[in-house]
Amino acid sequence: MYDITKRRTIRKYSAKEVSSELLHSLLQRAEQTQTMGNLQLYSVVVNRDDKMKKKLAPAHFNQPMVEGAPVVPTFCADYNRCTEWCLNRKASPGYDNFLSFINAATDALLYCQTFCHLAEEQGLGLCFLGTTIYNAQQIIDTLQLPKLVMPVATITLGWPDEEPIISDRLPLDAIVHEETYKPYTPESIDYFYTPKEQLEENLHFVEINGTESLAQIFTDIRYKGDDCRAISQSLLDVLRKQEFLN
Amino acid sequence: MYDITKRRTIRKYSAKEVSSELLHSLLQRAEQTQTMGNLQLYSVVVNRDDKMKKKLAPAHFNQPMVEGAPVVPTFCADYNRCTEWCLNRKASPGYDNFLSFINAATDALLYCQTFCHLAEEQGLGLCFLGTTIYNAQQIIDTLQLPKLVMPVATITLGWPDEEPIISDRLPLDAIVHEETYKPYTPESIDYFYTPKEQLEENLHFVEINGTESLAQIFTDIRYKGDDCRAISQSLLDVLRKQEFLN
Repeated sequence: MYDITKRRTIRKYSAKEVSSELLHSLLQRAEQTQTMGNLQLYSVVVNRDDKMKKKLAPAHFNQPMVEGAPVVPTFCADYNRCTEWCLNRKASPGYDNFLSFINAATDALLYCQTFCHLAEEQGLGLCFLGTTIYNAQQIIDTLQLPKLVMPVATITLGWPDEEPIISDRLPLDAIVHEETYKPYTPESIDYFYTPKEQLEENLHFVEINGTESLAQIFTDIRYKGDDCRAISQSLLDVLRKQEFLN
Repeated sequence: MYDITKRRTIRKYSAKEVSSELLHSLLQRAEQTQTMGNLQLYSVVVNRDDKMKKKLAPAHFNQPMVEGAPVVPTFCADYNRCTEWCLNRKASPGYDNFLSFINAATDALLYCQTFCHLAEEQGLGLCFLGTTIYNAQQIIDTLQLPKLVMPVATITLGWPDEEPIISDRLPLDAIVHEETYKPYTPESIDYFYTPKEQLEENLHFVEINGTESLAQIFTDIRYKGDDCRAISQSLLDVLRKQEFLN
């Protein structure tokens, strides 16, 4: 039986095919996820074709999983289909705005996560690519997404061909607040983060990167403030182009 | 065994307590969900206290589930904890921007959905409240959320005291696109939406609301364009106040 406490991200996949029957059954069962007004404000573009995966790869910084996985689904916030429905039914939709983007993105992400869970229950392995919103315009062009459709999540999916270690998590009391939010203190930060910082692999990361702390690997190398600010601007530009900021 | 095809939203809960042990076990197991750089950019504020639920209710338009449910967790995009960690580790965080909000909101929503799935597997029932981002400022004030924390999802949770019908979903080919996005046509819209429009309860909704079509119930009554635009502005204002738009 599937045990979520043993879940780990899978980046290497065996040659075994993921059948269309299984994939479609999982996508369909995931549809039972709750959505806003039961409008299902999402779409999934499924890439299996090698040429398409090759075209998609640069948008994901050529991470090898994109070309290496048998299936690469991109989950999109989609108000286009709903808007088309309205326009065909003498209704006047007004969903070209930021609230509607957040509502549709929420639908898409919840649906995506149910799909991930169901896929992992079947023994499939996956890697969630955080890069989708970094180069959204490239993905929009490659997948030919119309206005009011915005990619928000991509996963690479296949049968596992590796068994990586299970990565650490913060203790539960680091993320749960009872009744109101309790501010963190230097003492609670130490308490919550020291076990992570003391993991052998993290001590090793700090050493090979020559930083003073694990946190500096995030701020100075992986997710730099200047990069975040620049990408924020381009992301807002893409949202505007997709007509989600009118 | 839990069958997701039978899932339905539950709005009425029995008097039976949801034990802290069960709740914490579910919240902890859900932590195995993937997050950006394993940073876990989310927090959960758990409300059980009647006074707190009463304070929270107006932000959710006084929907009776908020005061009626034994547990009301609010899932938040949280870059505050990570930023505090960085500041305590001689690292210079730069996460007061839109990209970082979307990254943290993604983490929070994926975590939320894993939690929902695990809770439903245990027989718990829940209702996902789409209202959290409509009145985010009220929720921020009530839950005392600091800068770089933004509520993105609230659920009401308890043991079911009703068995509502399972709601319909669009056919799978309405939401799945192979390789590239296929534009919808008047014919495909008819094909995908007619079964929903012909459901007895939807014909009844149209009749009692005096609209010409089901779509008009959404555009003219439930989610009006003018409301969406106004809320979009206030949502952007709240994001700015929480320092996610610098």
